[in-house]
Amino acid sequence: MTDQTAWHAELEARRKKFEAVLAAEGCDAGLVFGCDGHAQDFRYLTNFVPILGDSWLVAGADWRCVLTFQWQIAEAIGRSGMETWEAAFDPIPLVVAAVAHEKSKRLGVVGLDRMPVPAFQALTRALADAELVDVTPGVRRLRRRKSPVEIKALRTAARLTDGMLDVARARAREGVTENELSAALATVPLESGGALAFPSTVVSGLNEPVAIRMPTARRLERGDSVMIDLGAEFDGYQADATRTFVLGRPSEKQKEVWDVVLAAYDAAVKLARPGVPCRELHRVSSKIIEGAGYKVAHRIGHGIGLATSYEWPSLDTEEARLEPGVTICIEPGVYTPGAGNMKLEDDVLITEDGCEILTRSDRSLEIGG
Amino acid sequence: MTDQTAWHAELEARRKKFEAVLAAEGCDAGLVFGCDGHAQDFRYLTNFVPILGDSWLVAGADWRCVLTFQWQIAEAIGRSGMETWEAAFDPIPLVVAAVAHEKSKRLGVVGLDRMPVPAFQALTRALADAELVDVTPGVRRLRRRKSPVEIKALRTAARLTDGMLDVARARAREGVTENELSAALATVPLESGGALAFPSTVVSGLNEPVAIRMPTARRLERGDSVMIDLGAEFDGYQADATRTFVLGRPSEKQKEVWDVVLAAYDAAVKLARPGVPCRELHRVSSKIIEGAGYKVAHRIGHGIGLATSYEWPSLDTEEARLEPGVTICIEPGVYTPGAGNMKLEDDVLITEDGCEILTRSDRSLEIGG
Repeated sequence: MTDQTAWHAELEARRKKFEAVLAAEGCDAGLVFGCDGHAQDFRYLTNFVPILGDSWLVAGADWRCVLTFQWQIAEAIGRSGMETWEAAFDPIPLVVAAVAHEKSKRLGVVGLDRMPVPAFQALTRALADAELVDVTPGVRRLRRRKSPVEIKALRTAARLTDGMLDVARARAREGVTENELSAALATVPLESGGALAFPSTVVSGLNEPVAIRMPTARRLERGDSVMIDLGAEFDGYQADATRTFVLGRPSEKQKEVWDVVLAAYDAAVKLARPGVPCRELHRVSSKIIEGAGYKVAHRIGHGIGLATSYEWPSLDTEEARLEPGVTICIEPGVYTPGAGNMKLEDDVLITEDGCEILTRSDRSLEIGG
Repeated sequence: MTDQTAWHAELEARRKKFEAVLAAEGCDAGLVFGCDGHAQDFRYLTNFVPILGDSWLVAGADWRCVLTFQWQIAEAIGRSGMETWEAAFDPIPLVVAAVAHEKSKRLGVVGLDRMPVPAFQALTRALADAELVDVTPGVRRLRRRKSPVEIKALRTAARLTDGMLDVARARAREGVTENELSAALATVPLESGGALAFPSTVVSGLNEPVAIRMPTARRLERGDSVMIDLGAEFDGYQADATRTFVLGRPSEKQKEVWDVVLAAYDAAVKLARPGVPCRELHRVSSKIIEGAGYKVAHRIGHGIGLATSYEWPSLDTEEARLEPGVTICIEPGVYTPGAGNMKLEDDVLITEDGCEILTRSDRSLEIGG
């Protein structure tokens, strides 16, 4: 983990910004909800998410947190610098009591998009006199431009991700199974105190067009396209990158598809700078893929940060413009029977006048077969 | 993955049982919701959960599923034997359309306890003429007694978990970091097409009383208690086991605490048979721990199956009686400054006349330091 003092200063600044979001909405207290896989807003304000279970933050005259399991409270206090944590297998009564204690007239809620029905019903019953206001967009807005502490964590995640890609390149050989490759990758972030951002995709062969799937017991064969989509997490920040390898000499078809992927990647990277509408990156890359006669199977990229696939922006639909400090992945892929699955993905930081590529592992296609 | 034919027969039987649950509640159609970390009911009926995102199953004249991401649809079709899958980044409109298509008057809903507010509001708006009935308990009841296919998957998960514990015993030596140990464990299930059921806890030292936390960069020292709580997942079924090692000769204090843990463990295992109230296991173990002057830090165990910590029964509170085919973990732990953290945990299948311990890795305390 990064230095606790730096983290506690960072968290203090974030909490002040959250108080400003609440004040701007006329709220006298805040309630942040997180659950498994969707606790990024909670983590943004506490630098902690539990291994399992819900997480609640009540922000008012007092700040306190409630979890489902009590196991990790010592760890949570250390990471967050906040003293008051409670837990119960059914945390809702504790949450209702903590919110009621604030006697809020107008409560700003974050994470209403994932809040389960029973918790919401219990809160609205208990707070019949208070108005609940969804302030989720205000906190999501804070998370868009990354701070120096966040960029440092993302650089570490990118370095660990490069380490995973290097291992994949070294180990992808005839006879190795997809599962064995996936297992070898997992040790890299764990040894350094990181984690897998998501289960790695390892897909080999030529005739199963698919962008993401769990690895199998299939053994790599000479001539295969081997696509590996993976990411490391560090201090909660998640990188996301992909390499494609051909075992031995690439066929004409593989070379043709790979050239299209490279051109789509280069066009998006070249355009990645402040002021450009996010979805322009998708448009230019898609035009190249479709112009070459292939299908655009998915969006050309998305934000990275405390999440990957859910992080703002979605590059295919987002009309807002890129800004300095926004971090995205660029991931054109073409999935064609006969050539296999070919995708190239890197993480990119938008700078003042362009962008910086954070993941840098060797991008070349051909490896010893 | 286990043989697809066996799985498809198993799924057909489960779906018939689900239809019987719906019929018993007078429902003319069903809707099953799953989300990240809470998709066990969905998995029970489909043998699939996505890497990321929500999962919905509409069961009526037609059966169809809706996901957040389209990536894994080919994989989902193969695993489930069901043909109709759709996906959208906002899946709610697809779900509402699929449910509306059934023209249900009384819809049995599973997973209402985790359904997010916006989805629930969209459904109730769209189905103004239909009654929504929570049939979650009926499906959770089906999941209690494990079938032969489920027990087979749990045996495989237990075997992989034993492999992880064996690696932990072989690698836990002075100078190794908690993170390095955790990394070494992760490869075992992944190489065999399994996964980690949850992030492994590796806690070393003598003076940090804690039952669960993420591993750190701390290096193991001679005399340490090293507690390792981990589990492998296979075909969705999750094992959960713990070993404690002392590096070198255990101190008197460590031996004293370990004897209490062993006695609490033995008492619970001895009592694990059909007809015994679940919470009796907690009571007898707790009595031993408290009788020796220590604190009961957590429940003595819980169900295992498609989940661990959330699986029925919770052994501290559940009044129902154990039945053949129920699978649980038994995990007494004592966390004492000076002796460190000492827990022993195994997975147990309740049989017709007693129980069978599924995880069998060496339980001895002392290892080379």
